[in-house]
Amino acid sequence: MPITAYSGGTSLEGQFRSSPVGGICIDMGGMNKILEIHEEDSDLVCQPGAGWMDINDTLKEKGLQLFFPLDPAPSATIGGMLSNGCSGTNAVRYGTAKAEWFLNATVVLPSGEVIKTRRRARKSSAGFDTTKLFIGAEGTLGIVTEVTIRLAPLLPTTVAVVHFPDVRKAAAAVREILNRGVGIECVELVDNEFMRATNLVHAPAPPRYPELDSLFFKLQGPTPASLAETARIVKEVVSKPEYGGSGWKLAKNDEEAADIWMDRKNAHYAGLALLPGARGWATDVCVPISKLPDLVYETKKDIKDSGLTSHIVGHVGDGNFHALLLFRDDAELAVVRDVVHRMVERAIALDGTCTGEHGVGMGKKEYLYEELGEGTVELMKAIKRTIDPLNLFNPGKLYPEEKDSKHPRP
Amino acid sequence: MPITAYSGGTSLEGQFRSSPVGGICIDMGGMNKILEIHEEDSDLVCQPGAGWMDINDTLKEKGLQLFFPLDPAPSATIGGMLSNGCSGTNAVRYGTAKAEWFLNATVVLPSGEVIKTRRRARKSSAGFDTTKLFIGAEGTLGIVTEVTIRLAPLLPTTVAVVHFPDVRKAAAAVREILNRGVGIECVELVDNEFMRATNLVHAPAPPRYPELDSLFFKLQGPTPASLAETARIVKEVVSKPEYGGSGWKLAKNDEEAADIWMDRKNAHYAGLALLPGARGWATDVCVPISKLPDLVYETKKDIKDSGLTSHIVGHVGDGNFHALLLFRDDAELAVVRDVVHRMVERAIALDGTCTGEHGVGMGKKEYLYEELGEGTVELMKAIKRTIDPLNLFNPGKLYPEEKDSKHPRP
Ligand SMILES: Cc1cc2nc3c(=O)[nH]c(=O)nc-3n(C[C@H](O)[C@H](O)[C@H](O)COP(=O)(O)OP(=O)(O)OC[C@H]3O[C@@H](n4cnc5c(N)ncnc54)[C@H](O)[C@@H]3O)c2cc1C
Ligand SMILES: Cc1cc2nc3c(=O)[nH]c(=O)nc-3n(C[C@H](O)[C@H](O)[C@H](O)COP(=O)(O)OP(=O)(O)OC[C@H]3O[C@@H](n4cnc5c(N)ncnc54)[C@H](O)[C@@H]3O)c2cc1C
Repeated sequence: MPITAYSGGTSLEGQFRSSPVGGICIDMGGMNKILEIHEEDSDLVCQPGAGWMDINDTLKEKGLQLFFPLDPAPSATIGGMLSNGCSGTNAVRYGTAKAEWFLNATVVLPSGEVIKTRRRARKSSAGFDTTKLFIGAEGTLGIVTEVTIRLAPLLPTTVAVVHFPDVRKAAAAVREILNRGVGIECVELVDNEFMRATNLVHAPAPPRYPELDSLFFKLQGPTPASLAETARIVKEVVSKPEYGGSGWKLAKNDEEAADIWMDRKNAHYAGLALLPGARGWATDVCVPISKLPDLVYETKKDIKDSGLTSHIVGHVGDGNFHALLLFRDDAELAVVRDVVHRMVERAIALDGTCTGEHGVGMGKKEYLYEELGEGTVELMKAIKRTIDPLNLFNPGKLYPEEKDSKHPRP
Repeated sequence: MPITAYSGGTSLEGQFRSSPVGGICIDMGGMNKILEIHEEDSDLVCQPGAGWMDINDTLKEKGLQLFFPLDPAPSATIGGMLSNGCSGTNAVRYGTAKAEWFLNATVVLPSGEVIKTRRRARKSSAGFDTTKLFIGAEGTLGIVTEVTIRLAPLLPTTVAVVHFPDVRKAAAAVREILNRGVGIECVELVDNEFMRATNLVHAPAPPRYPELDSLFFKLQGPTPASLAETARIVKEVVSKPEYGGSGWKLAKNDEEAADIWMDRKNAHYAGLALLPGARGWATDVCVPISKLPDLVYETKKDIKDSGLTSHIVGHVGDGNFHALLLFRDDAELAVVRDVVHRMVERAIALDGTCTGEHGVGMGKKEYLYEELGEGTVELMKAIKRTIDPLNLFNPGKLYPEEKDSKHPRP
């Protein structure tokens, strides 16, 4: 009988929360305890249902200057984040779930055996790391029941926002800033439609932002002096004539910083304001960062030509962006599907991936043969068969059926 | 017929360069070309025999402010580093080979099939990352023939050295410094014996350093002001009475910085100066960082009690340390083996690993059942059998024979 674990339930794997194919559904949400905090080692042991925001709140309440830096949806949980291979706005500074934030995992295999992938040392070269097998496997190889996560020092931050003539200039400015090595915790690209949505959310107040392609920065530094220096350098770079950044706004205090950042974090819900009554299809792709402007341009043109409403938000430091495509009925949904299909095909053609952080689920598995090649997909399937010969865990997800099933669409 | 690939030949897997079990030996050293440099994307495609130092020299010659931050032995190569799951002094800032530095690998599987694990996007959540299967697999799952590596911005650095009453105080100072979030690229713990060896290397010049447990820092910052601020904060922390750091020396210029750092990098060869005519057995273990001082203390005591000569060098920000144990004959070699055995057992008992960065090879596979548990080792072996059913690639390495083969020593 098929078995699916879930906890946060915020996954957007291949668009839409992918529903299990019947069978047993195990809600891991109750297993949400923090079991051990090792302040001295900057790590923590918890159950899979523990939310990353709850963990960070607990650390703050205890007065510890530590946090867990992976930041997908606010209600996402450690088990789902590991299984999804998530990331978020902090990835430009801290990397993704596939880096070294998950030190080990205790996993129930389909055979019923319970394994612990590693001990608690920060690094090990004792063979390939079996933890990584479960990161991004979307629950198809095992059910995660306990995790040791690494924590990072919590540093002072501030927030800034600045506007650009177009996406290409914004992306070029980001490249120069990242190469300067200053303290950037996050840098988020948003398009004019995102700004329009945000202004709508705040209406009837006067518009908060010019409706232009823009960057939101979260700056980070150990001292006020270094934060001020970072802000000065970032402002200097974005203001160069070749980038044309305008309207630079640096938060005056922590409240203002939180307020501006909330506008960025509210992207999903603000987007829905663009078309009252519509539902949103959130999708993401990722490409080498130099290709991002082309991809955003072509995607925006496609969206416009297709008559859809959408906004775009990008983790621009990673070459990753999300489109929230709005639809009100089945006819519009069909158009959305086609736009997503072309967006994915474009990303793969640019040496990118069908999903930077949302996962494959049932909606994107058809692209894996094209993206990864037959040999790599067959290797993934061989590993799945080795670990789960009866195909018990999350059947139907992640692994494409057969090579010729790709490209069912025109 | 068994097949072993090698290139840099610097691996210390489980002590000593592990020799292949007869069969075909493929020297990848000739495949040492850089194939593509994508400056805009901060990545590069190369063949497996390309050395990390050659890559960094090439980037410098081309005037690019980029570098590859994994830094094991100077003559190590990308294919060996990937296969070994290496790290080095930069790991405290940049993480290890198991983080996100290897974007993809082209691999010849034992079946003869050639796969490419991923495309070139910086991140992807399109399933579990098969690249990671080959990282640390020590050539047992495939032969790597091409790799895309991610590069980091090259930033101004400087170097400092400071001395402590003991390892515990040095390690405690490191913890506070890392939590301050200042720009630390490397922080290396060395013991009094290391300092003695280094003074011997420079003799007959007067002693360069007091023969005390010490820290070498490489500081990093985008601007002279931030570098100076970092140096000020680090000096302030180490000088606190509870840590008792003394003799703080900050390099006055780039030449002096390179000169001091060379003393640290020369550890292996300097160590041999402690006992003329001796050979050295280099071994490494890694534990949660709070356990490092205990482990170093007990290991040093054991070395002394056993009548051996050795020095200790630690990547203290990661909880990882190396001992270079000297021996002149088979009798001393037998004592060395026993000391290493007890050091590994101690590390595992402290929730650590038998190897932080040197690998398993043939010398440490007996510890994997104890360290990882039977289920995890059997999972690794099942994956090996799936990919290499005829056991063609590097047979005899990494995977322990059977559970009861562990602990052959008293
Ligand atoms: C508003 C919004 C914003 C988002 N922003 C981001 C973002 O910036 N970055 C990003 O990466 N994602 C983002 N996401 C997607 C989502 O938050 C992430 O994919 C997250 O990792 C899912 O975690 P979860 O706990 O909700 O997992 P769930 O949705 O519960 O599960 C995710 C998958 O993991 C499996 N699973 C869950 N628990 C376990 C377990 N214990 N063992 C084995 N398998 C398990 C499930 O079967 C499922 O396949 C966003 C989603 C929303 C709604
Ligand atoms: C002085 C000194 C200092 C060192 N310092 C460090 C340190 O700080 N950190 C650290 O991590 N290590 C260190 N090491 C160990 C060593 O440098 C690393 O393990 C390094 O990653 C080995 O790279 P290599 O190219 O020399 O690999 P090799 O020794 O050639 O091979 C290593 C392993 O990988 C396999 N292999 C090689 N090429 C391929 C390929 N193309 N495809 C598949 N398998 C392959 C080999 O069969 C072997 O199992 C040090 C070694 C020395 C001698």
